Parts: sequence; structure tokens; C-alpha cells
Amino acid sequence: MNAIDILLQNIAAAPDTSEAVNELRERILKLTMPTRALGRALDLAEELTVAAGQLPAIDQPHIAVFAGEHGVVEEGVSAYPAEVTRQMVLNFLGEGAAINQLARDSGANLMVVNVATGGTYPESELLMDQPVAAHSANLLHEPALTEDAMNAALALGMSVVERAVADGADIFVAGEMGIGNTTPSACLAVALTGCGVDAAVGRGTGLDDAALAKKRRVVKEALGRPTPRPESPLDWLREWGGYEHAAITGAALACAVHRLPFVVDGFNVAASVAVAVALAPRVSEVLIASHRGSEPGHGVLLDHLGKRAYLEWGLRLGEGSGAALMIPLCRLACRTVRDMATFDEAGVSGREPGAANA
Amino acid sequence: MNAIDILLQNIAAAPDTSEAVNELRERILKLTMPTRALGRALDLAEELTVAAGQLPAIDQPHIAVFAGEHGVVEEGVSAYPAEVTRQMVLNFLGEGAAINQLARDSGANLMVVNVATGGTYPESELLMDQPVAAHSANLLHEPALTEDAMNAALALGMSVVERAVADGADIFVAGEMGIGNTTPSACLAVALTGCGVDAAVGRGTGLDDAALAKKRRVVKEALGRPTPRPESPLDWLREWGGYEHAAITGAALACAVHRLPFVVDGFNVAASVAVAVALAPRVSEVLIASHRGSEPGHGVLLDHLGKRAYLEWGLRLGEGSGAALMIPLCRLACRTVRDMATFDEAGVSGREPGAANA
Repeated sequence: MNAIDILLQNIAAAPDTSEAVNELRERILKLTMPTRALGRALDLAEELTVAAGQLPAIDQPHIAVFAGEHGVVEEGVSAYPAEVTRQMVLNFLGEGAAINQLARDSGANLMVVNVATGGTYPESELLMDQPVAAHSANLLHEPALTEDAMNAALALGMSVVERAVADGADIFVAGEMGIGNTTPSACLAVALTGCGVDAAVGRGTGLDDAALAKKRRVVKEALGRPTPRPESPLDWLREWGGYEHAAITGAALACAVHRLPFVVDGFNVAASVAVAVALAPRVSEVLIASHRGSEPGHGVLLDHLGKRAYLEWGLRLGEGSGAALMIPLCRLACRTVRDMATFDEAGVSGREPGAANA
Repeated sequence: MNAIDILLQNIAAAPDTSEAVNELRERILKLTMPTRALGRALDLAEELTVAAGQLPAIDQPHIAVFAGEHGVVEEGVSAYPAEVTRQMVLNFLGEGAAINQLARDSGANLMVVNVATGGTYPESELLMDQPVAAHSANLLHEPALTEDAMNAALALGMSVVERAVADGADIFVAGEMGIGNTTPSACLAVALTGCGVDAAVGRGTGLDDAALAKKRRVVKEALGRPTPRPESPLDWLREWGGYEHAAITGAALACAVHRLPFVVDGFNVAASVAVAVALAPRVSEVLIASHRGSEPGHGVLLDHLGKRAYLEWGLRLGEGSGAALMIPLCRLACRTVRDMATFDEAGVSGREPGAANA
């Protein structure tokens, strides 16, 4: 049995968390407010409890940004040149990017993972510099990932979570940086959900109409290439994914083993975790959807995962930014239901007889 | 000229903040991300800049919960008995309510203002115990507020903001607690927006169908009472409002004078600030809509105010809870655009020629 198979067995064997959630639901009904008057904040606390097996404190958030370059960029599928991936890794290390500010102000540890970029970076406490390749191959013409490097990327993602767990993480955010990576995500979305290509392909960082049409053709042709085992999620990842996708898939699997809540960011992360769920359905239990962004495939994947987002903010940055915005909301939701008084404790009267259970 | 008229003049004379917003917009275009890729987080930073005249740091949030009792409760318009208002004030002072946890974990100062309850409370640093009345009169049969007590409530709300400003507040949240207060809010919503009664009246803390029908009748009949100056916002407040509404109206006016961003919570706060905007249109510039709750009149008022909410979480608690959830999001939005690097600073390449401006 290989490492992945053992992991999948461990995920399937994880303890049932429904009792913890039922207890929380009963507690919520006793708290000094009208029935479920905090709406989706209560859903959020419950989703986090399903994930962790208990109400987490959200004391120690960890964010890891996985960076990878993409051979398919040579087809003109991005509004930005390929070197921006490496430049943005340097920007992360220099603490100039959006995710740096969001991590700092949400009290999160930040790690930047060079999964598959060809860049050379200065030493930094923020950087995990363990590239499995310099970039993916051009998915239009050949399998994007090699079997060995994909497995190394999966393992790298898992090791990032292992390290976060060792550091006491109680919530995990994966972000990504990779010019061109909405093209592999669109391929994965089509393969995973069966949606049409047009529903999965969007403008990414800002394509014009002509480039959008070209991107759609690339995705259609790539999905039309003959593949050896067309029903296997890991093969889809190998054929059409990116190395940062593979690392995030591995991270999601590891979060499921450790019952570490994984806050899903945008389209690329959603595609990556959907691969993990296809491999091990119970991964879904640790996933919290942060936002529904402007890339159309994002909504398709969230619907496929059965997840409802908390923010509809038209985000399309990646880096983990939408999930990072959710960190303080996760913290407020969990601590509020943890620390509120019950009607009995506070001596507050209940509802009048005859009032609806609304 | 009376105090209110002087205030209205000061609001009208406040400096124009459009230059600060234009500068921020130009800066945002230079930050290392695709064009406006942080979506509504950028709208939020801009709204806060319109309000404050500069990008605020959100270092010192202040939350004030205004409590009042309502004569109309005797008509059976609430699912909870009237004494719950006083019991909840005690719960606030005992730090057992939702808003206590939300204030603590969002780093906000909390103040509880007894505007018009008949309760006796223990001394507490949290409490401003300056009631202008023991409760409002029954708005079904007579003007809910007396002229003198309404003016005292307006002044009390203003003084709360003065104190927050003196304490260094850079963002303000008004919450409310008052069993029965969605009935006066519904009356105000109809008077202010011209919407139908059914669009403004909801189940509040949880009415059944029969009680909802009764509440609609109460609102219809109350609005049918002859009133002396039917086109005057302050007269609407006096006829159909609550004292906590008046205090919040006063607080919104004072925030407009001090250009202190005011994060609007739920239906009751929206009704109160809509009175302030009716008195002084530029109050709108300091208002940020936090959420759109499940009480139907809330959306009617936000549309009337031309404000788009950031959260759609089905909240219906009041206390300032939805606005408090927004505090960390305001902080993240402002600090991110303040501290991010520009393309030039980070040495990141811009978009490819021919890419859309999406």
C-alpha cells in the first residue's frame, strides 16, 4: 500500500464528530438571544466544530501560499507574464503583498512554499524552498505533471500541514500564486463536476474577449487529449493540474487526517480541494468555504462540494486572501458561542407562550 | 437657533472628502494585484475613507448599545416579555451577551446606555445610566415620545459619540436593545421610504403568523393617527419612534459632525440613521452598511439609503452584533490597502499588452 492509500484509510477512519455538533446546537438554543438569531455566524461555528471535532478557539491560524509556474502560459492564457509568479514570491518574502497584511492583521502565521517555480530566492523565515519542478508542462499538449513530481508536491503539501499542526495550528488557509493557474483549475473543474467548459473558464486576472475565447479553446482541446485512466482524480491532476494544485490537494488530505479546519479560498484552491474530496469524500468535513469569487468556475465547484460561501465580495486575487478575511469571522463566531451566557445563567426570560419558533 | 439646527449646519459645512478617496483609488490601482482584485474589500476601504476624510486605521472601535422600553409591547407585538429589555441590560453588564464577546474579540470599547428603561442597575464601568424616560408611550394611541424626552435622547446619543471621540474612537457602532422596537422601526420605515406596511413589518424576535398579522394592524393604525406635521422626520420619530431610536439618530448626527465612520447594524439602527439622513443628507457619507438581516424592512431601508451591505448572514439579533462582525473586516480592508507594496516598489511586472481592464 502506498502513502496516499494509507492516508485515505486514515481519513475514512476518523472519528464521527456529529455528537460534538449536536451538543453545540443544543447549547446555542440556550444562549441569550432569539432562536439562532446570529444566523450564519452559528452555521460557521458549527461547520468549524464538524471539522475539528470540537469548537476551535482560532488562536493559531496558519496560512500557506503555494507557488507554481505553468507551461500553458505560452498559449497566452493569462493577462500577466509568467515571471510575475516569481516576482510575487519575492513580494511575499518582502511582506508587500495583500496576503502579508491580511496574515499579520488576522494574527496568522504565514508560510510561502515554492512548489514549482524556477526562481532563486533569498533566505527567509517565511520560505519553504523545496521545488519539485521548475514549472508544469504545457497541458495543451502533454500531461502537465510528471508522476514523481506530482507525488512529491502532494507530499510537500502534507508536510506543510504537519508543520502547521506541530506549531499548534487550529485553522488552516491555503493560498496559491501561479500565473496561468486558472486554466488548469478550469480543466479540473470540468473533469470533476462535468460542467461545460464555458461555465468553468473565466477571465482570471483580466483577459479580454479574444484571450478568453483562446483560453476556452485551450481547455477544450486539452480535455480532448486521450488520457490513460479518465475516471481517476489523481490522473486528472497529473494531466491538467498544476504542482501548486497538487500541493494543496495534499494539504487538504492532511487536514482531514488531523481534523484541522481548512478554509477554502478561491477558484484554484476549490479545484485542488475538490480533487481531495474526490479521493476521500470525508475531506469535505474539514472544508469551510470562505467566499464566492468572480471567477465563474468557483461557484460551480462550491455547488459541487455542497458548500455555501460566507462572503460574496467579487474577490479574484488568490493568495489565500478571501480565506484570510474569514479568519477573524471564524474567531468571532466560535468565541461568541463559547462565551455567551445562557438564559438560565443570565436570568433572562424566555419567549412568550404562543410565539413562533422562527 | 436650537442645538439641532446648529448641528445640521455643521454637517452641511463638513469638508469634501472626495479628494482623499480619489487618491486612495489611484493608489489601489498601483498595488500588487490585478485591477481591483480585492473587490468589495476595496469598496469598504473607500467607504471608510469617504466617511473619515482619510483612510482610518481602525485602531479604536467603539460600540454603544442603546436600550429602551416600548409602550406598544402591551399590544402583543413581540415574542418576548417587556422585562427582557432590562434583563438583557443586566446581561450586557455581566458580559454575557453576544455583543460582549464580539466587542472583546474585535478589540472594541463597549458602552451600554440606558436611554429609556425602568430598570435599576448595579454600578458598572460599562453603563451610562441617564434615562430620559422609563419607556415610550404606546404609539398605537398617542405620540410615542414626548418632545422634551426625545430631545434629551438625541442629546444623549450625541454625548455618547462625543465621549467616544474624546477616547480616540476611529470607528463607531451603535447597537440597540428594546423588546418591541421593530414596531416603531417599521412605522419609521414606512414614513421615511413610502414602502407598504407589509414590506416593513417582520417577525422580529420570532412572531407566529397571528401575531405578525396583529403587528401589521398596529403599524397601519398607528400610521393612520392624525399627526401635526406629517412631513417632518423629527415628528415621525416623536410619533412612532423609540427613545433608543432617537439616541441613535443623535449619535449618527454627531458622527457626521466628527466624520467618524458609523457602521450600521440591523433594522432598528437603519431606521434610526435614516431619520438622521432625512434631517441632514450628508450623514449618509459616514454610514457603512454592515449586513442585510432577515427582517424585511432592513433591506427596504438600506435600498432607501443607497447602501449595499457586506454580509448577508440572516442576522436578526440587534445589539450591534452584525456591525461588530464587520469591525475586523474594516480593519483588514484599511490596513491592507495602506500597507501593500505597489508594482514599482515590489518590482512586479504589469499586465501584458492587450489584456482587458477587467
